[in-house]
Order: sequence, then structure tokens, then C-alpha cells
Amino acid sequence: MPRPSGKFPRSGAQDARLPAMTASSGAPVPGARRATIAEIARLAGVSAPTVSKVLNGRTAVAPETRAHVQKVLYEHGYRSTKKTAKAYPIVELVFHELAGIYPIDILKGVQRVVVQHQMAVVVSESEGRQTPAQGWLEGVLSRRPAGVIAVFSDLSAEQRAQLATARVPLVVLDPNGVPGDEVPSIGSTNWIGGLSASRHLLELGHRRIAVITGPKWALSSRARLDGYRAAMDAAGVPVDPALIREGTFEIRDGLTHTNELLQLPDPPTAIFAFNDGMAIGVYHAASLAGLRVPQDLSVVGFDDYSPLDQWLVPPLTTVRQPLADMGAAAARMVLDLAQGIPPRYKRLELATELVVRASTAPPTQR
Amino acid sequence: MPRPSGKFPRSGAQDARLPAMTASSGAPVPGARRATIAEIARLAGVSAPTVSKVLNGRTAVAPETRAHVQKVLYEHGYRSTKKTAKAYPIVELVFHELAGIYPIDILKGVQRVVVQHQMAVVVSESEGRQTPAQGWLEGVLSRRPAGVIAVFSDLSAEQRAQLATARVPLVVLDPNGVPGDEVPSIGSTNWIGGLSASRHLLELGHRRIAVITGPKWALSSRARLDGYRAAMDAAGVPVDPALIREGTFEIRDGLTHTNELLQLPDPPTAIFAFNDGMAIGVYHAASLAGLRVPQDLSVVGFDDYSPLDQWLVPPLTTVRQPLADMGAAAARMVLDLAQGIPPRYKRLELATELVVRASTAPPTQR
Repeated sequence: MPRPSGKFPRSGAQDARLPAMTASSGAPVPGARRATIAEIARLAGVSAPTVSKVLNGRTAVAPETRAHVQKVLYEHGYRSTKKTAKAYPIVELVFHELAGIYPIDILKGVQRVVVQHQMAVVVSESEGRQTPAQGWLEGVLSRRPAGVIAVFSDLSAEQRAQLATARVPLVVLDPNGVPGDEVPSIGSTNWIGGLSASRHLLELGHRRIAVITGPKWALSSRARLDGYRAAMDAAGVPVDPALIREGTFEIRDGLTHTNELLQLPDPPTAIFAFNDGMAIGVYHAASLAGLRVPQDLSVVGFDDYSPLDQWLVPPLTTVRQPLADMGAAAARMVLDLAQGIPPRYKRLELATELVVRASTAPPTQR
Repeated sequence: MPRPSGKFPRSGAQDARLPAMTASSGAPVPGARRATIAEIARLAGVSAPTVSKVLNGRTAVAPETRAHVQKVLYEHGYRSTKKTAKAYPIVELVFHELAGIYPIDILKGVQRVVVQHQMAVVVSESEGRQTPAQGWLEGVLSRRPAGVIAVFSDLSAEQRAQLATARVPLVVLDPNGVPGDEVPSIGSTNWIGGLSASRHLLELGHRRIAVITGPKWALSSRARLDGYRAAMDAAGVPVDPALIREGTFEIRDGLTHTNELLQLPDPPTAIFAFNDGMAIGVYHAASLAGLRVPQDLSVVGFDDYSPLDQWLVPPLTTVRQPLADMGAAAARMVLDLAQGIPPRYKRLELATELVVRASTAPPTQR
């Protein structure tokens, strides 16, 4: 169906007024009238056709120019009232870092759903940074995807707004920070996972239970730690701050923290690592110290790297996160949003599950 | 720059002759004249504008129609003389299967190069099949990527031809079959890797050296096996067929074959698994049998899963494949081809490297 040549409705009667000014947060003032294309062009220092091209998702605009215009559009509260540009049949999946096994499981789940919609998945990474660089966003905007799924990675308020202006929906998977109401997110029941792993060790008779957490900025790690505290409190076992160690989800953290924990006057009889990679590091440290798992030291991980964990020696007791299902749920949510269907849930947490294998046993009497 | 409205050069003088017929292989007859758009349209049972749309990469053609027209174009030797449609700034990366660690390392390398070209990577899988389904190809053609990298996956001759007709360059990474001259490919020095792992075990004094190979269709596995045979021959050690076991690159193959190998009247003192996953299965089997690695059984893997292998207990001796570098090389090659630059090499093999860690030692005297 051909569109009328005047693609953008203008608030013509109010042309004499200034465009909507932004609040200091960068958010548009609610209720202020929308700026016109001509005003946006003047403010951005570009031509009106350039603004139109950006709004229509044409590729003949330099990425920096596009980002600049998007920013001005956002700052002045411009919202297109219709889908101005046809989205390309891709969903963007951005990871904090392409490392380890978990990105593959998530990608598999996203892939499964996206392919059913005759679309494809673009995978990128924010190179270990919590917030992707602006260049990443410019690339995304120039590709006009149906939606964006950010894994373990937070977009800045401005980046989120630029996506909103371009009408590209965003879903966050396993967010680092507390997700705001405006961004739908998928996670897993990290708190319950932390609780059930700790309870399992308590039920085996452990009292000196150490944890190796993820980094402070990871919300998932904080939830697991709170679950651990809740289990310890419920069992009436005081939490010893010396047994709480902060890692970065890297294998080597498991080694270094275990080495230190084993030097304590009253060392732990069990270690709960907040991902499986660090649990592998704990295995390594135990072996170097001449300790047997689980006879001398019980170990619990988190994630359930499939199928690796069941083949470790001994097979690892861990808390399973349904990573592929989380990816699939995020994909369904972002594709619904792309079709204008509001999400049924703003925040969806899929169930974690304790998988007891051979790395946990009652503590040896000392 | 506006294009002339007659986009496709026609061989007008010969309109009375039949279009070029195909040889039984499906390849166009060399030297035959090219079919016209009108002829292609008639043969495909579609309108001439539909053929034009396909050639121009317009999205307003149903995927099945597009595939059908592409097939007819190919069968009748139609080759566009110019880049008719602007490619989308994406490179397609298709894996045999999204599983294990190696896809992430390859993706990281592809990503690194593609991002430098302001492009993005679309990741897909052929669901464990050696040849992607036709639906996959239809999706690729409708997205008009700058190029395709197929990992550990073979496209059919017809699929390759459809890509060629659409002027989408293809590079194969670690191909399953012997790569044909027409498809540039990236691999690693698998034969030398097989040789150096076997030589390492021979130099330690092992004579009963078992191998757990990959599946027969994997060219990489065959090359590693030949390297093993060459090392054994050079050392004057006869190869015992009972010590050669065929796996499928899955962890469980390491377990099941090791279980059987240890039941032999004269069991091996060393096992060379053709990927690290199967080596982890060997570790598991050794542990179940009460054998220590490396005192009772030496183990060598292949790949060097980073950083997992160095943290296994004991750290795994393996043959490193530079997976990220292989991905980067494939990306550079396909982007060169997209710019019309012929590849300097039709086949590029990056060096493997033996990494000696703690899973190999001289055999215990029995």
C-alpha cells in the first residue's frame, strides 16, 4: 500500500512554540507537544530530508549522523505515531562477553524461536563492558532489527531511548542491575537457587559453608547470595564474613579463593561457587591441596553447563538455570513487542533446579 | 547513482535459440549462451518482473518462489554481470551444531573482523545435519548477506550454485569433505596435529596408543588419524586396529570407548581423543576404573578449549587449534570476495600446536 508523501504528522498549529525541552534526566517532559521534523533538523544541524531518512530507516545516512539525529529526536520527545520503517527480519542478541558455554545455550533458545518466525539472529558482544559502546548501537539502528535482546548487559538510559525512538523493542535477559519498569526482562529464580543449594549443604550437615560470588554489579549474584543468607538464617547457622568471597565468574577465581579459604584457621567443609566455571576452579584447588571431592570438600556450582558438568570427576552438583528456555522466552517477548503486543509480564523468572550429582557429601568429622 | 531502467544485459541476437541446457550434474554447459530474463521467467513459470526482483534482491518475493527462480537461473547458466543488489551489512555464519565451546571461539574471531567492517554476524545452525536444509538457504538469500561462512558443514552443489547466482560468496571452515576447488576453505594442520600428539606419546615410551576418532565424514578426523598412522609408522610401531575407535566428537564417546579399550587383553597405556570433549569422557572412564591420569593412563585431546583445559584435573595435554584465528581468516576471506578480491589462497591451513600439560607421562612398567 503506497504511503502518502507527507510521512510525518506535524503539530502544525503550534509551530510558533519551542519544541519540547528535556528534563535534566534526558527524558522528555510529559505532556509537552512533539517537535516537528523541521525543528529537529534545525536543532540537529542537518536537513529535514536527513531526519526523514533516519525516521524511515534508510541506509544512506552515516552511522554517526544517524545516532546524533536519534539523540535529538529523543531529547525533544519525538515519537513516530506509526511504524515508519519496515524492520529487517533479524533479532539482535548482544552478550556481555562471548566466552564460556552459556552464550551457546542461550543462543540456541533464541534461535529456536526466531527461526520459526522466518527471522535470523545477529550475535554481538559488548566486549566485557557492562554497557555496549555507542558504536554498537549505531550498528543496530542502521540494521533496523525487529528487536534487541541484551544478555547480562545493561544499556544506558540514552541507548534505551534511542531504541525506543527507532521503535526497536528491547528485552533484557539476566540483567545486571534492577530492571526498570520500562524494560521487560527475563531471568531465573536466582534467590531460590541460592537458597536450595545452601539448604542442600546444610541438610548434609555442613556448617562452614563458603560462597564464591559473582561481581558486585551482577544482580543474579546478589540474589544468589541473599538466598544463601536466608538458608543459613533459617538453619540458625551464623554467616561468617570470612567465608564470603567475591569472584568475577572466571574459572581462576575458584582456584584463588579456594586456596585462601583452605588457609583459614577454621576452613570451610563446603564451597558454593556461583557459576560452574568457578566450581571447576574449586576442583582444581582441592586437587592441588590433596583434598578429595566430596569426601574432604563438598562443591556446588550454578548454571549446569550441559553436558560437561555430568562428566566432570566427580560429576558436579549444581543449580540448573534453563538457559535455552530463557533465551526462547526472551525471543518470544521481543517478537511480540515487535508486533505491538504488550508483554503479559514485565519480568519473567524461569525456575532454577538443584541437580544433585557426586560432588556433595556429608562433612568428614574432624 | 541512478541505474538505467534496463538492469540486465540481454543476449538479444540469439533470442531464437534455446536457453543453455544443463549437464546432468546440474552445472551449466561451458560456453553456452546465457538465458534471458524472459526465458528464465517462462521456464520458472513466473513473470519477468519477479525474476528481476529476485536478481535485485527485493524482499517482496516469497522465499519458495525466490529459491525456485534461483534454481532455474542456476540451471540455465544465468550469471549477472554486475552486483545487482546491494548486500546487507551482515555475514552469515552457519554451524553444523550449536553445542560445546568451539562455536564461541570461532564466532569471536569472525566477529572481530566483521565489526571492523561495520558489519554484523548472523549465526545459525544446520541442526546437526551435514548439509543445511533448503529453508536455511532461502532465509540467507532473502537477507542478501555480504557473504556466508559455513563451519564444519557442507552445502550441496545446488546450494553453492544458488549462492553463486545471487553473488553471495561462500567460505568453508573445517569442511567435512575434501573441499572442491571452487570453494575457498580455512582449516588447521590436522595431519600435523595428529602426528605431533602421537609422536609426543611415542617419545614418552608408549607403544599401545589408542585413538578415539571423529565420525567418518569429518575430513579433519581423517587427517588426524593419518597423522597418527604416520607417527606410528615412523617409529616402527605397528598399528593395532583394535586400538582405533570411531566416535562422534561427543563426551560420552570418550567414556564408552575407554571402557571397552580397558577390557582388552592388552589395553592401551595412552589414549589420544580427537577432541577435548571426548578426552573429558576418557578422564571420567579412567576415574571409574580406578586409574590415575597420567600415572596409569596418558590422555591427549584436540582443540584446546580455552580456558577450560588448563583447569581440568589434571590439566589436559592437547593439540591447540587456533579457532578464533581460523574464524578471523574466514571472515577476511569472505569479505575480500564480497569486494571482488580473489582469495590469495584457495585453501588456508593455520598451524596446530601441541600443548603439553599434565595428562601425559611415561607408561608405568607392567
